[in-house]
Amino acid sequence: MSARSARPLVAFQGELGAFSQQAARQLAGDSVRVLPCERFEQVFRAVAEGTATAAAIPIENTLHGSVHENYDHLLNFDLRIVGETRVRIVHNLIAPPGLTLAQVRTVYSHPVALNQCLDFFAEHPEVRRESFYDTAGSVKMIMEKRPPGAAAIASMVAAEIYGAHVLKKSIEDDRENHTRFFLLQKPGKKCEAAKARIDGPAKTTVVFTTKNTAGALFRALGALALRDLSVAKIESRPMRGRPWEYLFYLDFHGHTGDQKVKNALGHLAELADFLRVLGCYEASG
Amino acid sequence: MSARSARPLVAFQGELGAFSQQAARQLAGDSVRVLPCERFEQVFRAVAEGTATAAAIPIENTLHGSVHENYDHLLNFDLRIVGETRVRIVHNLIAPPGLTLAQVRTVYSHPVALNQCLDFFAEHPEVRRESFYDTAGSVKMIMEKRPPGAAAIASMVAAEIYGAHVLKKSIEDDRENHTRFFLLQKPGKKCEAAKARIDGPAKTTVVFTTKNTAGALFRALGALALRDLSVAKIESRPMRGRPWEYLFYLDFHGHTGDQKVKNALGHLAELADFLRVLGCYEASG
Repeated sequence: MSARSARPLVAFQGELGAFSQQAARQLAGDSVRVLPCERFEQVFRAVAEGTATAAAIPIENTLHGSVHENYDHLLNFDLRIVGETRVRIVHNLIAPPGLTLAQVRTVYSHPVALNQCLDFFAEHPEVRRESFYDTAGSVKMIMEKRPPGAAAIASMVAAEIYGAHVLKKSIEDDRENHTRFFLLQKPGKKCEAAKARIDGPAKTTVVFTTKNTAGALFRALGALALRDLSVAKIESRPMRGRPWEYLFYLDFHGHTGDQKVKNALGHLAELADFLRVLGCYEASG
Repeated sequence: MSARSARPLVAFQGELGAFSQQAARQLAGDSVRVLPCERFEQVFRAVAEGTATAAAIPIENTLHGSVHENYDHLLNFDLRIVGETRVRIVHNLIAPPGLTLAQVRTVYSHPVALNQCLDFFAEHPEVRRESFYDTAGSVKMIMEKRPPGAAAIASMVAAEIYGAHVLKKSIEDDRENHTRFFLLQKPGKKCEAAKARIDGPAKTTVVFTTKNTAGALFRALGALALRDLSVAKIESRPMRGRPWEYLFYLDFHGHTGDQKVKNALGHLAELADFLRVLGCYEASG
């Protein structure tokens, strides 16, 4: 790889200006090159096939919970988690330059974003909500098609990219709205992304299945708890073809290079039917 | 309550003929009266406010996983789980009487249902897929509006209710597609629904939070495992206002009337910051 092309190309789902692009900047620096994709599966495929160096994917939101589809892709694609970051979801009212707040009649955005700004709509009963497939995409649309009195709800990055004007900052109802993102790359590849180095405390993510016996999950968690390794998150997903059995995804504090973590993973492998380490990365705090 | 009105009125989400209606029949008998609602929240509210006797809600699907919205409603509404049942999701190609398979040009259904019948569409490349908000609703629409060459994908119950004809049975790709439903009612109410009695092995569902310390979840599961009580399912959901902390929902085998289960719940209450028993019901197998 030449020095010129060493700048990572990070794939993400959504239009230019999506919150995932902000995550990509946090993970790989402001000068990161990005590859917007329509669907999450295409994001994973771009990295697996080498079209992109890395991917920034949302994995959980503090209001809505896990992005379950991405847990499934983590199992189905052989990529590694090499970084994590958190983005506070700030929704801004965005319009073409010249349009004033009093002139706004319709606001376009993703239904989730519209639903997170109900206080704003309660204060402006004359404004109609209109669902759109993407937050940043709604800014792109109002700038290109200019429907009369149309504004959008999206990130600051989206306003900047499409040359739109921010009419009102931070109109979201709940300030405790954060999304956690993973940076993914192919196993064994050195990544140039800023956050792919581990300088501080680390986290490890694994996926495993247990034998279908009483106490199996308790014993599996024991492999960590008995070594004072702290679980940050557990997620369960259904197993295809084995109804009412589950895969467990665990994030725990610890570095795969530490002997204690090696012992815990060895112990977990003894207890599990299946175990894969999905990655070890610097904890975002 | 008079003998006449003793037949339960079961609320569910979707149009008449939805898979939830089949669940309602399994849970409360074929003669059950039903109250279709547009949204899940309305289903919970109907029972909380006494408009309906009970509710049938999907809680997990073997291909897609948990219905997370309903876990959140279980916390926010004070209802009890009094029964569970499983419905095998069978997708049928349904059309107005007279239309033949060779005449079908467009198939309407919920996008999830369309995506679960990809083999059928691969064999019939001349047939276009069209997204609709509901499976049973798509049958209702083709019967009322009769768009030329239009069919729908939905349950047998939907075909029966709207007087439509089944062109092809069971066109789903994966036969291991099952949804588990809960029967809910207000606490303290005696329920007339067939499945609200416990004749066989029971399951109990609880929701709790742990102190944010290392090994907290391990110890909580210990309250069950150390008494040989077997966990059937664990689900985590984000806590509103406490970013990166979680609520845990546990289904385990056991009856709240048994001393061992009482001891386990007492032990869990010691360890948990918050604990609520959501219900005890006959295990569906």
